[in-house]
Amino acid sequence: MDAAAQPTPDYPRTTRTTPTRRADRARYDSATVHAILDAEFVCHLGFVADGAPVVLPTLYARVDRRLYLHGSTGSRPMRTIDGERVCVTVTIPDGIVLARAAMHHSVNYRSVVAHGIAHRVTDPAERAVALDALVDQVAPGRSADCRPANAKEHAMTAVLRLDLDEVSAKVRTGAVADEPEDLELPHWAGVIPVRRTLGAPVPDGALAAGTPLPGYLSHRA
Amino acid sequence: MDAAAQPTPDYPRTTRTTPTRRADRARYDSATVHAILDAEFVCHLGFVADGAPVVLPTLYARVDRRLYLHGSTGSRPMRTIDGERVCVTVTIPDGIVLARAAMHHSVNYRSVVAHGIAHRVTDPAERAVALDALVDQVAPGRSADCRPANAKEHAMTAVLRLDLDEVSAKVRTGAVADEPEDLELPHWAGVIPVRRTLGAPVPDGALAAGTPLPGYLSHRA
Repeated sequence: MDAAAQPTPDYPRTTRTTPTRRADRARYDSATVHAILDAEFVCHLGFVADGAPVVLPTLYARVDRRLYLHGSTGSRPMRTIDGERVCVTVTIPDGIVLARAAMHHSVNYRSVVAHGIAHRVTDPAERAVALDALVDQVAPGRSADCRPANAKEHAMTAVLRLDLDEVSAKVRTGAVADEPEDLELPHWAGVIPVRRTLGAPVPDGALAAGTPLPGYLSHRA
Repeated sequence: MDAAAQPTPDYPRTTRTTPTRRADRARYDSATVHAILDAEFVCHLGFVADGAPVVLPTLYARVDRRLYLHGSTGSRPMRTIDGERVCVTVTIPDGIVLARAAMHHSVNYRSVVAHGIAHRVTDPAERAVALDALVDQVAPGRSADCRPANAKEHAMTAVLRLDLDEVSAKVRTGAVADEPEDLELPHWAGVIPVRRTLGAPVPDGALAAGTPLPGYLSHRA
Protein backbone atom coordinates (compact mmCIF):
# COMPACT_ATOMS: atom_id res chain seq x y z
CA MET A 1 0.00 0.00 0.00
CA ASP A 2 1.28 3.38 -0.95
CA ALA A 3 2.22 5.42 2.10
CA ALA A 4 0.22 8.37 0.86
CA ALA A 5 -2.87 6.18 0.66
CA GLN A 6 -2.77 5.15 4.31
CA PRO A 7 -5.46 6.94 6.24
CA THR A 8 -4.21 8.88 9.23
CA PRO A 9 -6.27 8.55 12.38
CA ASP A 10 -8.80 11.19 13.23
CA TYR A 11 -8.35 13.43 16.23
CA PRO A 12 -10.29 12.46 19.37
CA ARG A 13 -13.07 14.72 20.56
CA THR A 14 -12.52 16.14 24.00
CA THR A 15 -14.60 18.42 26.18
CA ARG A 16 -12.39 21.29 25.08
CA THR A 17 -12.77 20.55 21.38
CA THR A 18 -16.51 19.93 21.43
CA PRO A 19 -18.24 23.24 20.72
CA THR A 20 -21.10 24.27 22.96
CA ARG A 21 -23.05 25.25 19.85
CA ARG A 22 -22.92 24.69 16.09
CA ALA A 23 -21.39 21.28 16.73
CA ASP A 24 -22.42 20.45 13.17
CA ARG A 25 -19.58 22.67 11.99
CA ALA A 26 -16.90 20.79 13.95
CA ARG A 27 -14.53 18.42 12.15
CA TYR A 28 -12.03 15.98 13.64
CA ASP A 29 -10.73 14.14 10.60
CA SER A 30 -7.07 14.69 9.97
CA ALA A 31 -7.62 15.35 6.26
CA THR A 32 -9.74 18.42 7.01
CA VAL A 33 -7.57 19.61 9.88
CA HIS A 34 -4.33 19.23 7.93
CA ALA A 35 -5.70 20.80 4.75
CA ILE A 36 -6.67 23.95 6.69
CA LEU A 37 -3.31 24.10 8.45
CA ASP A 38 -1.50 23.62 5.13
CA ALA A 39 -3.41 26.45 3.45
CA GLU A 40 -2.17 29.18 5.81
CA PHE A 41 1.05 30.35 7.38
CA VAL A 42 -0.04 32.85 10.05
CA CYS A 43 -1.49 31.50 13.28
CA HIS A 44 -2.61 33.15 16.49
CA LEU A 45 -0.72 31.82 19.49
CA GLY A 46 -2.46 32.07 22.84
CA PHE A 47 -0.77 31.67 26.19
CA VAL A 48 -1.20 32.84 29.74
CA ALA A 49 1.20 35.42 31.18
CA ASP A 50 0.78 36.58 34.77
CA GLY A 51 -2.67 35.05 34.76
CA ALA A 52 -3.85 37.00 31.72
CA PRO A 53 -4.42 35.75 28.19
CA VAL A 54 -2.07 36.90 25.44
CA VAL A 55 -2.72 36.32 21.73
CA LEU A 56 0.03 37.05 19.21
CA PRO A 57 0.22 36.44 15.48
CA THR A 58 3.17 34.35 14.40
CA LEU A 59 4.32 32.04 11.62
CA TYR A 60 3.87 28.30 11.97
CA ALA A 61 4.53 25.10 10.07
CA ARG A 62 2.81 21.74 10.18
CA VAL A 63 4.93 18.59 9.94
CA ASP A 64 2.84 15.43 10.22
CA ARG A 65 0.95 15.72 13.51
CA ARG A 66 3.08 18.51 14.93
CA LEU A 67 3.12 22.28 14.70
CA TYR A 68 6.33 24.26 14.90
CA LEU A 69 6.67 27.90 15.90
CA HIS A 70 9.79 29.97 16.26
CA GLY A 71 10.95 33.24 17.67
CA SER A 72 13.80 35.09 19.22
CA THR A 73 15.20 33.36 22.29
CA GLY A 74 14.88 36.73 24.02
CA SER A 75 11.22 37.33 23.21
CA ARG A 76 8.54 37.15 25.87
CA PRO A 77 6.48 34.37 24.29
CA MET A 78 9.47 32.13 23.74
CA ARG A 79 10.61 32.63 27.33
CA THR A 80 7.09 32.23 28.71
CA ILE A 81 5.64 29.20 27.03
CA ASP A 82 8.23 26.41 27.09
CA GLY A 83 6.44 23.62 28.98
CA GLU A 84 3.27 25.69 29.30
CA ARG A 85 -0.20 25.29 27.86
CA VAL A 86 -0.85 27.09 24.60
CA CYS A 87 -3.66 27.37 22.10
CA VAL A 88 -2.81 27.79 18.42
CA THR A 89 -5.59 28.93 16.11
CA VAL A 90 -5.58 29.24 12.32
CA THR A 91 -8.48 30.91 10.54
CA ILE A 92 -9.23 31.31 6.83
CA PRO A 93 -12.24 33.50 5.91
CA ASP A 94 -13.92 32.28 2.71
CA GLY A 95 -16.98 34.47 2.36
CA ILE A 96 -19.17 37.20 3.76
CA VAL A 97 -22.70 35.92 4.32
CA LEU A 98 -25.25 38.71 4.02
CA ALA A 99 -28.61 37.55 5.32
CA ARG A 100 -31.89 39.43 5.30
CA ALA A 101 -31.85 39.37 9.12
CA ALA A 102 -29.05 41.16 10.95
CA MET A 103 -28.59 38.22 13.31
CA HIS A 104 -28.03 35.76 10.48
CA HIS A 105 -25.11 37.65 9.02
CA SER A 106 -22.14 35.35 9.13
CA VAL A 107 -18.82 34.45 7.60
CA ASN A 108 -17.87 31.32 5.69
CA TYR A 109 -14.59 30.17 7.10
CA ARG A 110 -12.29 27.30 7.94
CA SER A 111 -10.48 27.28 11.27
CA VAL A 112 -8.38 24.96 13.37
CA VAL A 113 -7.86 25.22 17.11
CA ALA A 114 -5.07 23.18 18.71
CA HIS A 115 -4.58 22.88 22.46
CA GLY A 116 -1.56 21.47 24.23
CA ILE A 117 1.76 22.06 25.89
CA ALA A 118 4.52 23.72 23.90
CA HIS A 119 8.00 22.27 24.19
CA ARG A 120 11.28 23.85 23.21
CA VAL A 121 13.07 21.87 20.51
CA THR A 122 16.79 21.45 21.11
CA ASP A 123 17.68 18.45 18.93
CA PRO A 124 19.63 19.86 15.97
CA ALA A 125 18.05 17.53 13.42
CA GLU A 126 14.53 18.34 14.54
CA ARG A 127 15.35 22.05 14.62
CA ALA A 128 16.56 21.85 11.02
CA VAL A 129 13.35 20.11 9.94
CA ALA A 130 11.27 22.71 11.77
CA LEU A 131 13.09 25.73 10.38
CA ASP A 132 12.92 24.37 6.83
CA ALA A 133 9.22 23.70 7.29
CA LEU A 134 8.62 27.24 8.58
CA VAL A 135 10.13 28.66 5.40
CA ASP A 136 8.31 26.18 3.16
CA GLN A 137 4.97 26.87 4.83
CA VAL A 138 5.18 30.45 3.56
CA ALA A 139 6.70 29.60 0.16
CA PRO A 140 6.76 25.88 -0.66
CA GLY A 141 10.16 24.89 -2.06
CA ARG A 142 11.95 27.90 -0.68
CA SER A 143 13.98 26.15 2.04
CA ALA A 144 16.15 24.53 -0.63
CA ASP A 145 16.87 27.92 -2.19
CA CYS A 146 18.19 30.11 0.63
CA ARG A 147 21.06 30.18 3.08
CA PRO A 148 20.35 27.96 6.11
CA ALA A 149 20.76 29.36 9.59
CA ASN A 150 24.33 29.62 10.83
CA ALA A 151 25.46 28.91 14.39
CA LYS A 152 24.88 32.48 15.55
CA GLU A 153 21.38 32.55 14.09
CA HIS A 154 20.57 29.17 15.63
CA ALA A 155 21.65 30.46 19.02
CA MET A 156 19.26 33.40 18.68
CA THR A 157 16.29 31.32 17.57
CA ALA A 158 13.96 29.29 19.75
CA VAL A 159 11.87 26.57 18.12
CA LEU A 160 8.74 25.31 19.82
CA ARG A 161 6.76 22.17 19.08
CA LEU A 162 3.08 21.59 19.74
CA ASP A 163 1.99 18.02 19.17
CA LEU A 164 -1.40 17.83 17.50
CA ASP A 165 -3.29 15.76 20.04
CA GLU A 166 -6.24 17.89 21.08
CA VAL A 167 -7.31 19.61 17.90
CA SER A 168 -10.45 20.32 15.94
CA ALA A 169 -11.55 22.20 12.86
CA LYS A 170 -14.66 24.28 12.38
CA VAL A 171 -16.04 24.96 8.94
CA ARG A 172 -18.92 27.06 7.67
CA THR A 173 -19.69 26.82 3.97
CA GLY A 174 -22.61 27.56 1.73
CA ALA A 175 -25.45 29.94 1.59
CA VAL A 176 -27.48 32.36 3.64
CA ALA A 177 -29.56 30.76 6.42
CA ASP A 178 -32.47 33.15 6.85
CA GLU A 179 -35.72 32.45 8.65
CA PRO A 180 -38.48 31.28 6.27
CA GLU A 181 -40.65 34.25 7.20
CA ASP A 182 -37.86 36.65 6.20
CA LEU A 183 -37.46 35.42 2.62
CA GLU A 184 -39.90 37.99 1.26
CA LEU A 185 -38.08 40.95 2.76
CA PRO A 186 -36.75 43.38 0.14
CA HIS A 187 -33.10 43.18 1.21
CA TRP A 188 -30.46 41.76 -1.10
CA ALA A 189 -29.03 38.54 0.33
CA GLY A 190 -26.16 36.36 -0.73
CA VAL A 191 -22.53 35.52 -0.24
CA ILE A 192 -19.49 37.59 -1.22
CA PRO A 193 -16.50 35.28 -1.76
CA VAL A 194 -13.34 36.23 0.10
CA ARG A 195 -9.94 35.02 -0.91
CA ARG A 196 -6.28 35.84 -0.45
CA THR A 197 -4.41 36.77 -3.57
CA LEU A 198 -0.72 37.21 -4.15
CA GLY A 199 0.57 40.10 -6.21
CA ALA A 200 3.45 40.21 -8.62
CA PRO A 201 6.74 39.53 -6.79
CA VAL A 202 8.77 42.69 -6.17
CA PRO A 203 12.50 41.92 -6.53
CA ASP A 204 14.83 43.22 -3.85
CA GLY A 205 16.67 46.35 -4.91
CA ALA A 206 20.05 44.69 -4.38
CA LEU A 207 19.18 41.68 -6.55
CA ALA A 208 21.52 41.24 -9.51
CA ALA A 209 19.82 42.32 -12.72
CA GLY A 210 18.37 39.39 -14.62
CA THR A 211 18.07 37.07 -11.60
CA PRO A 212 15.15 34.90 -12.67
CA LEU A 213 12.11 34.29 -10.49
CA PRO A 214 12.46 30.69 -9.28
CA GLY A 215 9.98 28.13 -10.56
CA TYR A 216 8.45 27.51 -7.14
CA LEU A 217 7.39 31.17 -7.06
CA SER A 218 6.36 31.58 -10.69
CA HIS A 219 2.89 30.12 -10.22
CA ARG A 220 2.27 32.77 -7.59
CA ALA A 221 3.15 35.65 -9.89
CA MET B 1 -12.73 73.12 14.74
CA ASP B 2 -14.28 70.31 12.82
CA ALA B 3 -14.90 67.28 15.02
CA ALA B 4 -13.23 64.98 12.55
CA ALA B 5 -10.10 67.10 12.69
CA GLN B 6 -9.62 66.75 16.44
CA PRO B 7 -6.74 64.43 17.18
CA THR B 8 -7.62 61.53 19.42
CA PRO B 9 -5.11 60.76 22.15
CA ASP B 10 -2.57 58.03 21.63
CA TYR B 11 -2.67 54.86 23.68
CA PRO B 12 -0.29 54.69 26.64
CA ARG B 13 2.56 52.22 26.56
CA THR B 14 2.43 49.64 29.29
CA THR B 15 4.72 46.76 30.18
CA ARG B 16 2.33 44.45 28.43
CA THR B 17 2.21 46.48 25.23
CA THR B 18 5.94 47.12 25.00
CA PRO B 19 7.48 44.36 22.90
CA THR B 20 10.58 42.64 24.19
CA ARG B 21 12.07 42.92 20.72
CA ARG B 22 11.43 44.80 17.46
CA ALA B 23 10.10 47.68 19.49
CA ASP B 24 10.66 49.80 16.37
CA ARG B 25 7.63 48.09 14.87
CA ALA B 26 5.29 49.07 17.72
CA ARG B 27 2.76 51.86 17.25
CA TYR B 28 0.56 53.53 19.85
CA ASP B 29 -1.09 56.31 17.91
CA SER B 30 -4.82 55.94 17.62
CA ALA B 31 -4.81 56.69 13.90
CA THR B 32 -2.69 53.62 13.17
CA VAL B 33 -4.47 51.41 15.68
CA HIS B 34 -7.93 52.39 14.47
CA ALA B 35 -7.06 52.11 10.78
CA ILE B 36 -5.92 48.51 11.28
CA LEU B 37 -9.01 47.64 13.30
CA ASP B 38 -11.24 49.24 10.66
CA ALA B 39 -9.65 47.26 7.83
CA GLU B 40 -10.63 43.83 9.17
CA PHE B 41 -13.65 42.09 10.65
CA VAL B 42 -12.26 38.82 12.05
CA CYS B 43 -10.35 38.95 15.32
CA HIS B 44 -8.84 36.28 17.52
CA LEU B 45 -10.28 36.37 21.03
CA GLY B 46 -8.11 34.96 23.78
CA PHE B 47 -9.31 34.07 27.25
CA VAL B 48 -8.43 31.70 30.04
CA ALA B 49 -10.67 28.71 30.76
CA ASP B 50 -9.80 26.34 33.58
CA GLY B 51 -6.34 27.86 33.66
CA ALA B 52 -5.65 27.17 30.00
CA PRO B 53 -5.52 29.64 27.12
CA VAL B 54 -8.25 29.51 24.48
CA VAL B 55 -8.10 31.42 21.18
CA LEU B 56 -11.19 31.57 18.98
CA PRO B 57 -11.87 33.50 15.78
CA THR B 58 -14.87 35.77 15.94
CA LEU B 59 -16.34 38.89 14.38
CA TYR B 60 -15.75 42.26 15.99
CA ALA B 61 -16.57 45.91 15.51
CA ARG B 62 -14.78 49.05 16.58
CA VAL B 63 -16.82 52.02 17.80
CA ASP B 64 -14.63 54.91 18.94
CA ARG B 65 -12.32 53.48 21.60
CA ARG B 66 -14.31 50.32 22.19
CA LEU B 67 -14.48 46.89 20.59
CA TYR B 68 -17.69 44.89 20.50
CA LEU B 69 -17.98 41.14 20.14
CA HIS B 70 -21.08 39.00 20.14
CA GLY B 71 -22.11 35.41 20.41
CA SER B 72 -24.77 33.04 21.57
CA THR B 73 -25.71 33.49 25.21
CA GLY B 74 -25.23 29.73 25.53
CA SER B 75 -21.73 29.58 24.08
CA ARG B 76 -18.71 28.84 26.23
CA PRO B 77 -16.83 32.05 25.51
CA MET B 78 -19.80 34.27 26.22
CA ARG B 79 -20.45 32.47 29.52
CA THR B 80 -16.77 32.43 30.44
CA ILE B 81 -15.48 35.89 29.79
CA ASP B 82 -17.95 38.41 31.20
CA GLY B 83 -15.86 40.35 33.70
CA GLU B 84 -12.72 38.41 32.84
CA ARG B 85 -9.48 39.38 31.18
CA VAL B 86 -9.33 38.92 27.43
CA CYS B 87 -6.89 39.64 24.64
CA VAL B 88 -8.25 40.56 21.23
CA THR B 89 -5.85 40.43 18.31
CA VAL B 90 -6.37 41.51 14.71
CA THR B 91 -3.79 40.67 12.06
CA ILE B 92 -3.56 41.66 8.39
CA PRO B 93 -0.77 40.04 6.34
CA ASP B 94 0.50 42.37 3.60
CA GLY B 95 3.42 40.55 2.06
CA ILE B 96 5.72 37.55 2.06
CA VAL B 97 9.32 38.64 2.55
CA LEU B 98 11.75 36.21 0.92
CA ALA B 99 15.27 36.89 2.08
CA ARG B 100 18.47 35.25 0.93
CA ALA B 101 18.96 33.93 4.47
CA ALA B 102 16.38 31.51 5.89
CA MET B 103 16.33 33.38 9.21
CA HIS B 104 15.45 36.69 7.56
CA HIS B 105 12.32 35.38 5.92
CA SER B 106 9.44 37.39 7.27
CA VAL B 107 5.97 38.71 6.64
CA ASN B 108 4.86 42.28 6.14
CA TYR B 109 1.81 42.76 8.33
CA ARG B 110 -0.26 45.09 10.44
CA SER B 111 -1.61 43.85 13.77
CA VAL B 112 -3.34 45.20 16.84
CA VAL B 113 -3.36 43.57 20.26
CA ALA B 114 -5.85 44.81 22.86
CA HIS B 115 -5.81 43.72 26.49
CA GLY B 116 -8.53 44.29 29.03
CA ILE B 117 -11.60 43.07 30.80
CA ALA B 118 -14.65 42.16 28.73
CA HIS B 119 -18.00 43.32 30.01
CA ARG B 120 -21.42 42.13 28.99
CA VAL B 121 -23.52 44.91 27.45
CA THR B 122 -27.12 44.99 28.66
CA ASP B 123 -28.21 48.55 27.88
CA PRO B 124 -30.59 48.27 24.91
CA ALA B 125 -29.31 51.42 23.19
CA GLU B 126 -25.69 50.33 23.44
CA ARG B 127 -26.59 46.82 22.27
CA ALA B 128 -28.26 48.29 19.20
CA VAL B 129 -25.19 50.38 18.40
CA ALA B 130 -22.96 47.35 18.86
CA LEU B 131 -25.04 44.99 16.73
CA ASP B 132 -25.30 47.54 13.92
CA ALA B 133 -21.56 48.10 14.10
CA LEU B 134 -20.88 44.36 13.91
CA VAL B 135 -22.85 44.15 10.66
CA ASP B 136 -21.30 47.32 9.25
CA GLN B 137 -17.77 46.17 10.08
CA VAL B 138 -18.26 43.28 7.65
CA ALA B 139 -20.20 45.26 5.04
CA PRO B 140 -20.26 49.03 5.63
CA GLY B 141 -23.79 50.36 5.17
CA ARG B 142 -25.46 47.01 5.60
CA SER B 143 -27.04 47.61 9.02
CA ALA B 144 -29.52 50.04 7.44
CA ASP B 145 -30.54 47.43 4.87
CA CYS B 146 -31.53 44.34 6.86
CA ARG B 147 -34.05 43.31 9.48
CA PRO B 148 -32.87 44.30 12.97
CA ALA B 149 -32.83 41.71 15.72
CA ASN B 150 -36.21 40.93 17.27
CA ALA B 151 -36.84 40.27 20.96
CA LYS B 152 -36.20 36.54 20.66
CA GLU B 153 -32.92 37.08 18.80
CA HIS B 154 -31.83 39.70 21.34
CA ALA B 155 -32.45 37.22 24.14
CA MET B 156 -30.22 34.67 22.42
CA THR B 157 -27.36 37.09 21.76
CA ALA B 158 -24.71 38.24 24.18
CA VAL B 159 -22.80 41.43 23.39
CA LEU B 160 -19.42 42.07 24.98
CA ARG B 161 -17.48 45.30 25.18
CA LEU B 162 -13.73 45.70 25.49
CA ASP B 163 -12.63 49.26 26.12
CA LEU B 164 -9.50 50.14 24.19
CA ASP B 165 -7.23 51.19 27.03
CA GLU B 166 -4.22 48.90 26.81
CA VAL B 167 -3.64 48.49 23.10
CA SER B 168 -0.81 48.61 20.61
CA ALA B 169 -0.20 48.01 16.95
CA LYS B 170 2.75 46.32 15.32
CA VAL B 171 3.64 46.99 11.71
CA ARG B 172 6.27 45.56 9.38
CA THR B 173 6.53 47.14 5.95
CA GLY B 174 9.08 47.35 3.25
CA ALA B 175 11.83 45.26 1.84
CA VAL B 176 14.05 42.31 2.58
CA ALA B 177 16.55 42.84 5.43
CA ASP B 178 19.44 40.54 4.57
CA GLU B 179 22.92 40.65 6.03
CA PRO B 180 25.34 42.66 3.89
CA GLU B 181 27.55 39.60 3.38
CA ASP B 182 24.59 37.66 1.95
CA LEU B 183 23.74 40.10 -0.82
CA GLU B 184 25.92 38.29 -3.35
CA LEU B 185 24.22 34.92 -2.80
CA PRO B 186 22.48 33.58 -5.91
CA HIS B 187 19.02 33.26 -4.37
CA TRP B 188 16.12 35.36 -5.61
CA ALA B 189 14.99 37.80 -2.93
CA GLY B 190 12.05 40.13 -2.72
CA VAL B 191 8.54 40.65 -1.48
CA ILE B 192 5.34 39.00 -2.71
CA PRO B 193 2.38 41.27 -1.95
CA VAL B 194 -0.52 39.63 -0.15
CA ARG B 195 -4.01 41.04 -0.18
CA ARG B 196 -7.57 40.03 0.43
CA THR B 197 -9.89 40.24 -2.55
CA LEU B 198 -13.65 39.94 -2.72
CA GLY B 199 -15.27 37.94 -5.49
CA ALA B 200 -18.46 38.67 -7.37
CA PRO B 201 -21.44 38.56 -4.97
CA VAL B 202 -23.45 35.32 -5.28
CA PRO B 203 -27.17 36.08 -4.82
CA ASP B 204 -29.14 33.85 -2.49
CA GLY B 205 -31.19 31.26 -4.37
CA ALA B 206 -34.41 32.52 -2.83
CA LEU B 207 -33.78 36.12 -3.85
CA ALA B 208 -36.48 37.57 -6.10
CA ALA B 209 -35.27 37.79 -9.66
CA GLY B 210 -34.03 41.23 -10.53
CA THR B 211 -33.24 42.29 -6.96
CA PRO B 212 -30.44 44.80 -7.55
CA LEU B 213 -27.13 44.63 -5.74
CA PRO B 214 -27.21 47.53 -3.28
CA GLY B 215 -24.87 50.42 -3.87
CA TYR B 216 -22.87 49.81 -0.69
CA LEU B 217 -21.90 46.39 -2.09
CA SER B 218 -21.38 47.36 -5.71
CA HIS B 219 -17.86 48.66 -5.22
CA ARG B 220 -16.93 45.24 -3.86
CA ALA B 221 -18.15 43.35 -6.90
